[in-house]
Amino acid sequence: MSKNSKSDKMTIVYCLYPDSTEAKKTASLLLKKGKVICANIVKDVESLYMWQGKLQRSKEVAVYFKTLTSFSKEVQKEIVKLHSYDVPFVAELKVEAVNMEYQQYAKKILRST
Amino acid sequence: MSKNSKSDKMTIVYCLYPDSTEAKKTASLLLKKGKVICANIVKDVESLYMWQGKLQRSKEVAVYFKTLTSFSKEVQKEIVKLHSYDVPFVAELKVEAVNMEYQQYAKKILRST
Amino acid sequence: MSKNSKSDKMTIVYCLYPDSTEAKKTASLLLKKGKVICANIVKDVESLYMWQGKLQRSKEVAVYFKTLTSFSKEVQKEIVKLHSYDVPFVAELKVEAVNMEYQQYAKKILRST
Repeated sequence: MSKNSKSDKMTIVYCLYPDSTEAKKTASLLLKKGKVICANIVKDVESLYMWQGKLQRSKEVAVYFKTLTSFSKEVQKEIVKLHSYDVPFVAELKVEAVNMEYQQYAKKILRST
Repeated sequence: MSKNSKSDKMTIVYCLYPDSTEAKKTASLLLKKGKVICANIVKDVESLYMWQGKLQRSKEVAVYFKTLTSFSKEVQKEIVKLHSYDVPFVAELKVEAVNMEYQQYAKKILRST
Repeated sequence: MSKNSKSDKMTIVYCLYPDSTEAKKTASLLLKKGKVICANIVKDVESLYMWQGKLQRSKEVAVYFKTLTSFSKEVQKEIVKLHSYDVPFVAELKVEAVNMEYQQYAKKILRST
């Protein structure tokens, strides 16, 4: 395991979508552009939130986009731009360390434009 | 995307529950009190752990409570107080950055008592 | 809630598996060796990634291994060693704080060899 050295630090961008279809559309686009390495789509999520003073429930899917930290801002901007919500939640989770083999794989896969 | 500036840093509090019913009860209470912005309940979780030297398995749900860091301690205390387990796992996950739009939305929603 | 003091900081190791069977095998081994406190297996995950220039989809399960930070490197090495993938993704997620009761429980459960 190697501590995430500055240049090849990895990041997980966490975001919720109304359904798998929209999640897969954005994931496929980011993958084909070489901006993320993988997207894990967690189905079967129920979200609770307040809207106009009332408790609301909706079915969602949660997506973990795995990328290098150096690509993270660009990925987050693209997710917000493509998202169907007016105000999506797009969060960069802190990853302390990732196994060396995966980091090297990531650097081969991702392409800066 | 704005780096989480000190005052409006965001946090995800991660906790496991025996079922959706209990998870929703706590989530609804925290939402109505204006302490969290949203709760994502991931169903279909199986947990393994040791108890009295034996391997145990139980069905659980995982909940991601989204809040401002300034509300996080209060939220974690309330979760522990309400929880049915003697020793629940209540963890504050580090969020590096969240999209500006969501941060501004969070600050409108949450209410310090 | 106590801020994670250095010695008893907690860590979540996040990893994907092709199915629950393999995930449970590794989790059971790490639990019986006293290296992790609990493993939460999130079923119903769909992953998208590129392979040889083509978009691929596969069913996976996501596992959150909960341990003390002092055990984390050893746990990550064991996960990589046991994993069926040539290049698994094994990430150490940063946990800011965990409730005191759980930390004390963790220190009783885990055993350094």
